[in-house]
Amino acid sequence: NNKDTFFSNATRSRIVYHVLQRTKYYTLTELEGLLSICKLINNGAYEAAFPPHEGAYKSRQPIKTHGPQNNRHLLYERWARWGMWYKHQPLDLIRRYFGEKIGLYFAWLGWYTGMLIPAAIVGLCVFFYGLFTMNGSQPCQEICAAAEVFMCPLCDKNCSLQRLNDSCIYAKVTYLFDNGGTVFFAIFMAIWATVFLEFWKRRRSILTYAWDLIEWEEEEETLRPQFEAKYYTVERVNPITGKPEPHQPFSDKITRLLISVSGIFFMISLVITAVFAVVVYRLVVMEQFASFKWSFIKQHWQFATSAAGVCINFVIIMMLNVVYVVVTHLMFLSEYPRTESEWENSFALKMFLFQFVNLNSSIFYIAFFLGRFVGHPGNYNKLFNRWRLEECHPSGCLIDLCLQMGVIMFLKQIWNNFMELGYPLIQNWWSRHKIKRGIQDASLPQWENDWNLQPMNIHGLMDEYLEMVLQFGFTTIFVAAFPLAPLLALLNNIIEIRLDAYKFVTQWRRPLPARATDIGIWYGILEGIGILAVITNAFVIAITSDYIPRLVYEYKKSSSWRSALGMEAVMGPPSFMDFRYRDYRGPPWSSKPYEFTLQYWHILAARLAFIIVFEHLVFGIKSFIAFLIPDVPQDLYDRIRREKYLVQEMMYEAE
Amino acid sequence: NNKDTFFSNATRSRIVYHVLQRTKYYTLTELEGLLSICKLINNGAYEAAFPPHEGAYKSRQPIKTHGPQNNRHLLYERWARWGMWYKHQPLDLIRRYFGEKIGLYFAWLGWYTGMLIPAAIVGLCVFFYGLFTMNGSQPCQEICAAAEVFMCPLCDKNCSLQRLNDSCIYAKVTYLFDNGGTVFFAIFMAIWATVFLEFWKRRRSILTYAWDLIEWEEEEETLRPQFEAKYYTVERVNPITGKPEPHQPFSDKITRLLISVSGIFFMISLVITAVFAVVVYRLVVMEQFASFKWSFIKQHWQFATSAAGVCINFVIIMMLNVVYVVVTHLMFLSEYPRTESEWENSFALKMFLFQFVNLNSSIFYIAFFLGRFVGHPGNYNKLFNRWRLEECHPSGCLIDLCLQMGVIMFLKQIWNNFMELGYPLIQNWWSRHKIKRGIQDASLPQWENDWNLQPMNIHGLMDEYLEMVLQFGFTTIFVAAFPLAPLLALLNNIIEIRLDAYKFVTQWRRPLPARATDIGIWYGILEGIGILAVITNAFVIAITSDYIPRLVYEYKKSSSWRSALGMEAVMGPPSFMDFRYRDYRGPPWSSKPYEFTLQYWHILAARLAFIIVFEHLVFGIKSFIAFLIPDVPQDLYDRIRREKYLVQEMMYEAE
Repeated sequence: NNKDTFFSNATRSRIVYHVLQRTKYYTLTELEGLLSICKLINNGAYEAAFPPHEGAYKSRQPIKTHGPQNNRHLLYERWARWGMWYKHQPLDLIRRYFGEKIGLYFAWLGWYTGMLIPAAIVGLCVFFYGLFTMNGSQPCQEICAAAEVFMCPLCDKNCSLQRLNDSCIYAKVTYLFDNGGTVFFAIFMAIWATVFLEFWKRRRSILTYAWDLIEWEEEEETLRPQFEAKYYTVERVNPITGKPEPHQPFSDKITRLLISVSGIFFMISLVITAVFAVVVYRLVVMEQFASFKWSFIKQHWQFATSAAGVCINFVIIMMLNVVYVVVTHLMFLSEYPRTESEWENSFALKMFLFQFVNLNSSIFYIAFFLGRFVGHPGNYNKLFNRWRLEECHPSGCLIDLCLQMGVIMFLKQIWNNFMELGYPLIQNWWSRHKIKRGIQDASLPQWENDWNLQPMNIHGLMDEYLEMVLQFGFTTIFVAAFPLAPLLALLNNIIEIRLDAYKFVTQWRRPLPARATDIGIWYGILEGIGILAVITNAFVIAITSDYIPRLVYEYKKSSSWRSALGMEAVMGPPSFMDFRYRDYRGPPWSSKPYEFTLQYWHILAARLAFIIVFEHLVFGIKSFIAFLIPDVPQDLYDRIRREKYLVQEMMYEAE
Repeated sequence: NNKDTFFSNATRSRIVYHVLQRTKYYTLTELEGLLSICKLINNGAYEAAFPPHEGAYKSRQPIKTHGPQNNRHLLYERWARWGMWYKHQPLDLIRRYFGEKIGLYFAWLGWYTGMLIPAAIVGLCVFFYGLFTMNGSQPCQEICAAAEVFMCPLCDKNCSLQRLNDSCIYAKVTYLFDNGGTVFFAIFMAIWATVFLEFWKRRRSILTYAWDLIEWEEEEETLRPQFEAKYYTVERVNPITGKPEPHQPFSDKITRLLISVSGIFFMISLVITAVFAVVVYRLVVMEQFASFKWSFIKQHWQFATSAAGVCINFVIIMMLNVVYVVVTHLMFLSEYPRTESEWENSFALKMFLFQFVNLNSSIFYIAFFLGRFVGHPGNYNKLFNRWRLEECHPSGCLIDLCLQMGVIMFLKQIWNNFMELGYPLIQNWWSRHKIKRGIQDASLPQWENDWNLQPMNIHGLMDEYLEMVLQFGFTTIFVAAFPLAPLLALLNNIIEIRLDAYKFVTQWRRPLPARATDIGIWYGILEGIGILAVITNAFVIAITSDYIPRLVYEYKKSSSWRSALGMEAVMGPPSFMDFRYRDYRGPPWSSKPYEFTLQYWHILAARLAFIIVFEHLVFGIKSFIAFLIPDVPQDLYDRIRREKYLVQEMMYEAE
């Protein structure tokens, strides 16, 4: 920790510096040299090995008159500054400086951000459509006018009878997010997700061609040192290289699988417990808020409960995320993946599963379970025979869903951006402070300047991808409930690109360049999210929102239809009264009080039919679009074929 | 037509014989020579060009002591004889003799036939399960005991009141195909289709590796002569070869697309008209049969109507198939596809669409539309205000569906086999008769012997694939209604393999060998059928069969469940009476006669919920299985990687 050992370490790493000075791709022999260095670093003989940056990223002289000092300077000026936020990224330069793998990440991120623009605009339009037609909506009007309709108290002790028009404002806000435009937007977003992925394939093929990766194939990977150290006693002949190498016995593979699966189950059950805890908390706190002294909260106790619940939920999510990283690392202590990429894929999949379930389970609960098992007046279901289950507002649970999504998404993005940039900034400030020197000192060699920077995170690009993929989930999976999600995502990503760029150029040591032809496991995950999104949106529209009841009501009201179809006798005269009780139960004075009415079964059948129609339609459109868009653009395809043709011709001539 | 011109033609084709004597793959220059021959044949200068067979397929000496005379003889003895029906096919020999494309067809056919064995066994088990539990089924028992329940007459003039137990036998037959096993079998077949396709991919990769096609890529195809002749005035530079070539202007592409689309629509509307015609025919004939003099038919007039309808349907299907081929060829007169494979794909897709719609539309009608719009007593819906719409038996439409499927499948297979083998046999017999000589004359050169055989059909393998793919559709799409379909298909295919073999070896000229790495457009079609099958089976079980009503009935009867869930008050006491009216309408003496009962809405909701659950479950399992099974077996994958690794090593050493 003191200056002396630091410099002696730095001197030792001078050799490393010489080996890694050229930012190039290594042949197998060179890689073996490199791997011995990795082993020496693992042993503690060396402290670090990294290619140095090309120089300072800032220059006193303006770039316009004096030209860029080096590529790093150029990248900083043309890419990593805030002023560049509206410009295309210099992808070729990024690729030349950081390698294809990082270049591909930024290409993907830029592509995703660009594709978010139409989604954000359409989402905004849907939102404004709701805003402008809000006052014309019949349910809103009737709820706001219903001063004489009294609702049963929502909690047992401190709640009183409510007037229905007390929830007027909730009804209006709900309408903002639940109007005719929502169905359109859900279909639009499902198609958008497909188009995004299909066109990304084309973009990727153009990039890999331009970057000369068409013919490139990954070489045989070396084993992880941990794997070698664990299994050096058990040897087998590698079927590909033909050389003996350590081997994981079958029993260990089973153990490994079991540990993975049980770890995943443990973590998921932890998440479910957390969600349940928040539910119980809400039930307990509900009564407290309802008897609060401050009358503003007393009046809006339901909103206050929700808001407090969401905040606590967010804190739990963030805490569990930290637990996940620790647990996953612990799991890997007994898992021993064979190669680095195996480790990476396994880690990525686990982290994605955890974080996805963690982020979304509370939202799933609110969308599909909240307020569905409350029973009815006189026979409420109680949790542990003690707390009455929470009910939704008279205008539905959708507003809770919006609140939950909006708050979690917003807070998470702020937190992520802080962690991503703030953390290395502070660390670098601290190491500067420690060694009492400016971060760029022209008198020192570049590698000593870089030594002061943070090494690139052990998870490599995984955290960056993970964050974006989770965000993609947020923007698509419940988009029917929160059409502003793409806009939030767009704003975040515009910041994210420059933040990442700034971090890569100025705050991190230059990473070892690596080749890649695609974004790996993430593409499959994105496709899976696209499919899940269609299903959840169908269910949200059918079950959570009031779209179907409104549709059935409209249908019954339009008597011209009905007489045309000769259904007058079958359906009975329309009565809006039927639609006012969200549960569609009979009134207390009927022969079987609180029994489900015929209306309930009509609407249930309509809801289910909607799910079937929506899913078949949207999946049909999705597949058709995916079929229509070829993975490689025609001119690129022709060019590749032409090259092959010329090679063939040459070979025939040689024969 | 006279002998003289025939022999002069044969002499002219002697040159062709010399060019094509070697059964090998041609380089580009050779192919150009070949293509000029094609042009000469098109001009009429030559009559035919084909590689000769290797000799006679029959020999006086037994193969065991004297060894095979040639490969053709060997193929006949070891493959094309009926006695070989239980043996594996000699795929490598087939490939060596006929080329990879035909080899791959037989590999696929053999694989499909082998996979049908488990499906046929399970289907048979489901059928026997129905047979043995038939008498225990409650609906059967109650229908057979209901001598005092009278049903309204099913037609207006000649029908009388029926006793419910008159349809006892129908109820029993229906139960054969509609019992608890059906749902299981539908899920099983959906998984079977996935496993079949996934394992075919593995099999294919093994074959292409063994046949050295891994690295092979299709060469640039030459244009079709028709295309060249049409567009020789409009030239452009081919982006791949860099040479000028005729070019189809954009406006012609649009015209072509329009012609295709309108042709398809025309043909599909023709099919729908035909189905409609059969429906009307049934309505007209129904009354006639019901007043028939022969009392057996008078009693079973409904069955007689169905049976006659099916037969007429089959005749119409067969006639329309002929029309299709003609219309498709006419369409191609104005379509001008660019290359042979473009023509083949376009033709295959069109023929598949036509024949698929043609074969299945009447089945779709029976499964989902028959008996659903009849109205109710006192207010029957009438076609053209004249004919009352047809009703189903009191035990449902499923028996009609079975009859339709069974008869069409059975007749079609017999017809196909006759056309496939009988037609060339007769033609060859005729040409032998004409030239008054045995089909194998040792004194003549081989190519003159082969001249007497039929040329391989212009559609190549397409007809063979088309037949099998349509059969695959039959065995999967409505398998829930007819579990014996896989058995029928299996029996047919065992014959089909040897029939095709016999035809290729003895009745056809040896085809020009061609390379192929996969079964082309058919794989995608098979996958599409697999997906469609899940959807149709879900709908058949939910809507056509009585599985859901029985389930709801069982659920309501088991009062222990109901009291456990506290639903006693909600559901009302169970009454089997509710379930006896298939339409779930109120009785005539209720306050609103013939209105849909609450029961109807319960069951409708249950049906729709079943569709949702079934589809999500089965598609989930399908995707999971497809994900689990890698496309290339591990050891083959290792071997390919090892070869690449060795090449890389050698290159590094050379450097």
